[in-house]
Amino acid sequence: MSDASILFDRLCVIGIGLIGSSILRAARERGLARTLVAADLSEKVVKRVEELDIADMVTRDLAAAVEGADCVILCVPSGAFGSVAEVIGAHLKAGAVISDTGSVKGAVVAQMTPFLPQGVHFIPAHPVAGTEHSGPDAGFAALFGNRWCIFTPAEDIDPAKLTLYREFWEKLGSKVECMTPEHHDLVLAVTSHVPHLIAYNIVGTADDLETVTESEVIKFSAGGFRDFTRIAASDPTMWRDVFLNNRKAVLEVLGRFSEDLAYLQRAIRWGEGDKLFELFTRTRAVRRSIIDLGQETAEPDFGRKHGE
Amino acid sequence: MSDASILFDRLCVIGIGLIGSSILRAARERGLARTLVAADLSEKVVKRVEELDIADMVTRDLAAAVEGADCVILCVPSGAFGSVAEVIGAHLKAGAVISDTGSVKGAVVAQMTPFLPQGVHFIPAHPVAGTEHSGPDAGFAALFGNRWCIFTPAEDIDPAKLTLYREFWEKLGSKVECMTPEHHDLVLAVTSHVPHLIAYNIVGTADDLETVTESEVIKFSAGGFRDFTRIAASDPTMWRDVFLNNRKAVLEVLGRFSEDLAYLQRAIRWGEGDKLFELFTRTRAVRRSIIDLGQETAEPDFGRKHGE
Repeated sequence: MSDASILFDRLCVIGIGLIGSSILRAARERGLARTLVAADLSEKVVKRVEELDIADMVTRDLAAAVEGADCVILCVPSGAFGSVAEVIGAHLKAGAVISDTGSVKGAVVAQMTPFLPQGVHFIPAHPVAGTEHSGPDAGFAALFGNRWCIFTPAEDIDPAKLTLYREFWEKLGSKVECMTPEHHDLVLAVTSHVPHLIAYNIVGTADDLETVTESEVIKFSAGGFRDFTRIAASDPTMWRDVFLNNRKAVLEVLGRFSEDLAYLQRAIRWGEGDKLFELFTRTRAVRRSIIDLGQETAEPDFGRKHGE
Repeated sequence: MSDASILFDRLCVIGIGLIGSSILRAARERGLARTLVAADLSEKVVKRVEELDIADMVTRDLAAAVEGADCVILCVPSGAFGSVAEVIGAHLKAGAVISDTGSVKGAVVAQMTPFLPQGVHFIPAHPVAGTEHSGPDAGFAALFGNRWCIFTPAEDIDPAKLTLYREFWEKLGSKVECMTPEHHDLVLAVTSHVPHLIAYNIVGTADDLETVTESEVIKFSAGGFRDFTRIAASDPTMWRDVFLNNRKAVLEVLGRFSEDLAYLQRAIRWGEGDKLFELFTRTRAVRRSIIDLGQETAEPDFGRKHGE
């Protein structure tokens, strides 16, 4: 490891699932910390992280894990931030950067802030990256490459610490953008939370129909349905917590979604093909923009293999 | 070409888009017909098919195209079957198999039947395969491999012709299943049509929000939204016609979807995490079944490349 790349003497990651284990792997690969500490309450996870050898120290003792760390990142479900912050708060080193990777930012800030001592620098963050897999085996160092990481710091954040933590995420491969927690939660309700909810919902609807068998749903899923099953296979605990903690924005976007769907439903009922055609043409352009920005593959069918 | 593989002396495909051009490519590759005839009303498409050299004869004259053909397959949007059948009906060869690849079967049968002469064998078919791309360049021979093709013939169909046409689709790589047009339309409403509608809808909702910019939707689309843009980039004409021609089943499934979504919405509003968790756990099993049946890749994120 070249000392030139080191940003933190001691980096502590709490919660070693898909995201936490990817941070550890990428930080080690790029030499971003002298010592990597991994902490998780689960005995099974701690054992597996030791086997995977992706950290220098692995422990179930969260308070001990953060002692002396220059940077502590919480990668736990959105419902657990308060209780973890309560356990570690008094043990944080003065001057440390404390961050998280939660999918909801307003609730995380509200849950953690009461437990954080003066003199630590809280930079809430959300890497917009992931797969439908979970657990320490699911992570990989390239996960954050070319993805955005959204920071939602308070206005009085120390600019030097902000620059330091931005550099950390940039070295993980990400682009960093700052916004308020409230705006983050609205943006992500649109680009992530409501899409997950409707994917979970259509998979549930299909599974429940009495007139179409489960076997038929599965066999003929290549007609489009199978796409939705990917994000509907995401971690249930994490996603339950997302919806409970971003209630306001999710309900707002969901209201708009349902209103727009009722418009399409009515157009179908009354045979108004022009209304459907107008929308179906406009949506093509949105995908083109996403591909042009390098946020999606240009290959048909996500590059899935055919004929096998 | 070995004569042993030939099933039809003269195979005519009408409508040379993603599906039609894939049939031509696969039929030539596997030597399933002595002569391949391609027909399309569009001058541009006919020119391109000639350049691609995927048929032995290419024409805009549909009536001339079907003369002497043992098998004629219509691969046109669901709204165009009646008018094409009207043009070709009187020119069909006695004993020929006539088929289609429409995504809706009840309406196709109703549209085509009045124009088909006695002595031809109508086997409506729907290959449940595709990508979001369209046009003659988008097709490829492996498209139907390991996918299902659903036949919806009348009860009095000639068993020998049914066996012959089943063999054709099996040689294209597909598994064939028979059902009634009505049941097909309900099954596909669940596994294809409503998923497409809600994908189009969420992309439209996101595009319309005044509080989140288009640039934000695009940048942060990796949170889940971008998955939906794939099927929302499908051919607008084809999909308008699907919804107008499968109105009853689509409205029925859509009613169930909205009812289920209202249940989740209420659970979010009242903080009933257990209801969310129960669904989110159940939906994981559906994906596992689809992967186990070989209808989906087991790789995370559809096998998309990361970090580029």
